[in-house]
Amino acid sequence: MDEIFLQRAIELAHASVSGGDGGPFGAVVVKDGEIIGEGRNRVIGSNDPTAHAEIAAIRSACARLGRFHLADCVLYASSEPCPMCLSAAYWARLQRIVFANTRDQAAAIGFCDDALYDELRLPHAARSVPTCHLPIPGAAEPLRRWHENPGRTAY
Amino acid sequence: MDEIFLQRAIELAHASVSGGDGGPFGAVVVKDGEIIGEGRNRVIGSNDPTAHAEIAAIRSACARLGRFHLADCVLYASSEPCPMCLSAAYWARLQRIVFANTRDQAAAIGFCDDALYDELRLPHAARSVPTCHLPIPGAAEPLRRWHENPGRTAY
Repeated sequence: MDEIFLQRAIELAHASVSGGDGGPFGAVVVKDGEIIGEGRNRVIGSNDPTAHAEIAAIRSACARLGRFHLADCVLYASSEPCPMCLSAAYWARLQRIVFANTRDQAAAIGFCDDALYDELRLPHAARSVPTCHLPIPGAAEPLRRWHENPGRTAY
Repeated sequence: MDEIFLQRAIELAHASVSGGDGGPFGAVVVKDGEIIGEGRNRVIGSNDPTAHAEIAAIRSACARLGRFHLADCVLYASSEPCPMCLSAAYWARLQRIVFANTRDQAAAIGFCDDALYDELRLPHAARSVPTCHLPIPGAAEPLRRWHENPGRTAY
């Protein structure tokens, strides 16, 4: 079954190349042997740097199920998820991830996924995007209010 | 000026706590001293695990400018971006990132950002979400088609 769902993710990747509106990446979310969310890269067409295939598939599946966790679902991606999409899969509590092409194959055609994994390992001061910790007075108040609310919904 | 924009991000974090529809996090994107995108966490209210403050602020700024890169913009976040949001900032080519609360402060009230940074460092086999590389025939075709198209738009 894994091959069938992965094949659909690759079809979606082809659609982005044909459409000219995104990179060559597709993804599907599957629950109980049924595709419940699909996505393809549409960064260019939607002017949205977060419009990766996996993000779109996860959002689509969550909208269909009406919940923000997908613990009973599997993510199939035509290529290895970038750190943004992998993190989204964790936030969604996905059960399993299956991918076909590696980050090295994506790097070979100009995508920076692999470099981004390296970058995230670095301390702030060593990163290519300058990152500054500026603890202003009162900044932690929203955290305290959230934590002290017994009716809060964890996610 | 950094303090003023960070203060607005914290106001947005308060709004999510008050609204009860998301975690205590807010963010803004600033261009030429003006806020051009705002976001607050709405994971719960929107049933979308990717609806973090920084993702929302980046999407909002890109929609306003009509482009998918924000190389002339700064991201202000009430708390240190999680790996998903940090990666989104890199994909958006943001110039600089400023945050107030640390990932340790978020971890202290139950958010897994810090653990997620650790998880991303691990090889596939050691991760808590099983991740499988399944290279099926034809999988690399979309990558080849993309690479061979001289009119492709890089992002």
